[in-house]
Amino acid sequence: MTLALDLASDVVALTRALVDVPSESGAEAPLADAVEAALRALPHLTVHRIGNSVVARTELGRPQRAVLAGHLDTVPAAGNLPSALRDDRVHGLGACDMKGGVAVALRLAAGVPAPTRDLTYVFYECEEVEGDRNGLHRIAAHRPDLLEDADLAILMEPSDAGIEAGCQGVLTADIVVRGERAHTARSWKGVNAAHVAAPVLQRLHDHTPERVVIDGLEYREGLSAVAVRAGVAGNVVPDECVITVNSRFAPSRSAEEAEAYIRNLFPEYEVQVTEVVPGALPGLARLGGLVAALGATPRPKLGWTDVARFAALGTPALNYGPGDPTLAHTAGEYVPVDHLRTCEEHLRRWLSP
Amino acid sequence: MTLALDLASDVVALTRALVDVPSESGAEAPLADAVEAALRALPHLTVHRIGNSVVARTELGRPQRAVLAGHLDTVPAAGNLPSALRDDRVHGLGACDMKGGVAVALRLAAGVPAPTRDLTYVFYECEEVEGDRNGLHRIAAHRPDLLEDADLAILMEPSDAGIEAGCQGVLTADIVVRGERAHTARSWKGVNAAHVAAPVLQRLHDHTPERVVIDGLEYREGLSAVAVRAGVAGNVVPDECVITVNSRFAPSRSAEEAEAYIRNLFPEYEVQVTEVVPGALPGLARLGGLVAALGATPRPKLGWTDVARFAALGTPALNYGPGDPTLAHTAGEYVPVDHLRTCEEHLRRWLSP
Repeated sequence: MTLALDLASDVVALTRALVDVPSESGAEAPLADAVEAALRALPHLTVHRIGNSVVARTELGRPQRAVLAGHLDTVPAAGNLPSALRDDRVHGLGACDMKGGVAVALRLAAGVPAPTRDLTYVFYECEEVEGDRNGLHRIAAHRPDLLEDADLAILMEPSDAGIEAGCQGVLTADIVVRGERAHTARSWKGVNAAHVAAPVLQRLHDHTPERVVIDGLEYREGLSAVAVRAGVAGNVVPDECVITVNSRFAPSRSAEEAEAYIRNLFPEYEVQVTEVVPGALPGLARLGGLVAALGATPRPKLGWTDVARFAALGTPALNYGPGDPTLAHTAGEYVPVDHLRTCEEHLRRWLSP
Repeated sequence: MTLALDLASDVVALTRALVDVPSESGAEAPLADAVEAALRALPHLTVHRIGNSVVARTELGRPQRAVLAGHLDTVPAAGNLPSALRDDRVHGLGACDMKGGVAVALRLAAGVPAPTRDLTYVFYECEEVEGDRNGLHRIAAHRPDLLEDADLAILMEPSDAGIEAGCQGVLTADIVVRGERAHTARSWKGVNAAHVAAPVLQRLHDHTPERVVIDGLEYREGLSAVAVRAGVAGNVVPDECVITVNSRFAPSRSAEEAEAYIRNLFPEYEVQVTEVVPGALPGLARLGGLVAALGATPRPKLGWTDVARFAALGTPALNYGPGDPTLAHTAGEYVPVDHLRTCEEHLRRWLSP
């Protein structure tokens, strides 16, 4: 039996109802069913189901179309279910990341039947796991027509109810330092890869990341070793030391430029790039009206978010949603009630005549 | 049924018979049973069983007593059973480490009933595993009387049928470098422990181990990182980097001195010493007659062996046995037939009137 969601209820009650339907990545079906059923009950929307993602569109022939998107999945529970309302905050798994934002979007889908621009609501699966399972990625791959006609997108990831523009790119690479094995009782017969790796770590330590200003926003880059691995056995000089680095690069750089940057920084080492995903330019010139309507000063988004997927489709996008992004994935995550109301009100105003 | 070992057969046949009784550490019982039965059949020996170790002693009232010792266990099989005789080498699991040496000792136990010095043969379990399971350690703990009256000891570990005198000590320590976690998208808010660890690895790289000459033998020390571990998650600045170092120190240094040396080398870091076992002085002054009889020029033993356990009992000891020590623990290990015969002949000569 599909759970009934009451989209006409208060945004706080709706957020709690969403939190109380567990939807860890890969297990979104019950929540997707409930969302789909609630949207299909609204005659002004055309609803599509792709896997456990749901797309609902108005088809009013407006000159502009906007996407409002949020993911349905959460990280695994951490003793933070069911939801609770305390101190004007909704607590519970996914309250911040990002069922609060989903609740706001669902409220608008139900409560603004004739928006001033056409809307494409996207509620998608598997944002918290590897990219090829990502629901937004799968919609773009299998039903691009549902997304391609949008002029702008709002991703309702937590942003403290402020505007976080664009996002930085991410590159992950292994720097492989090689040596030669030997018994530690005759260590001089080998070459200790861990010892030889010292300059790699020192170079990372000495490296000063750049700060790139785009549309008046400062994207501060970062380059971090996130793992170091060496070791064969307790009496063996290791012949390999692998340093995994994570680079966060400004959205003005392409994937190729980000990769070249790392390779140029470590020209004498073997560099294996395992992932590189470009960011998203803030595109504020194309989002001016929206920014003015939301009444917040844009900040640069330093982490990577799915706004980059919209950027890849040629759609300018920004992050705007309730909740403190630093609480995402913490057992104590919550979303403030005033964030929920602020986001709903500002977006409703933007969409209303 | 206990397997019958024919100690009167050739040393090559006996080595093969020993190899063909699997005796991975912890599973030595069948081999210990066979060794015990063969030794109990010899009227000139008094036999003791301690766990899966076997001690057999002559009690002739000679002015001097020597230990001949070898372990019965092997590392796990690596497709190298049963034994094979090829190119004048006995191949197979444990052939080198150290059933060849055990075969030589068993041949002497049976073939030299009235040696010029009293003998204590020790065939023991669990040398290849953690020290508290070591059979020699357990005999010393529970039946010290069986070992204490010896004037010298010969450990028949593979030494290329040459004399390897004393052994170096071993120290293992973790050098813990601490930082502060942060999201890699805001890496400047943390302190990257891996970056901060660079000087530790550089110091190890720059370190020149000492060469300590004792009794004319040069003990070349070593200090190696054997493991480096850092990493929390792909998007997290790690707050800890642990470098495990393995030190091989000359037998003239005490455990305390070895520990102080490491702490002094890394005064600004947290150093956790996890193991420190002193070595064994070569003690050639007390082993002169034996060295002359074996007709080989002593070399320093750089690895750690159970001669250190004899040293701890106050008994000078040396390593002397058939087989190339660098083949120990390799799937292709073998023992040359000429090593087996050389060791047996030299020891027989030393023990015969």
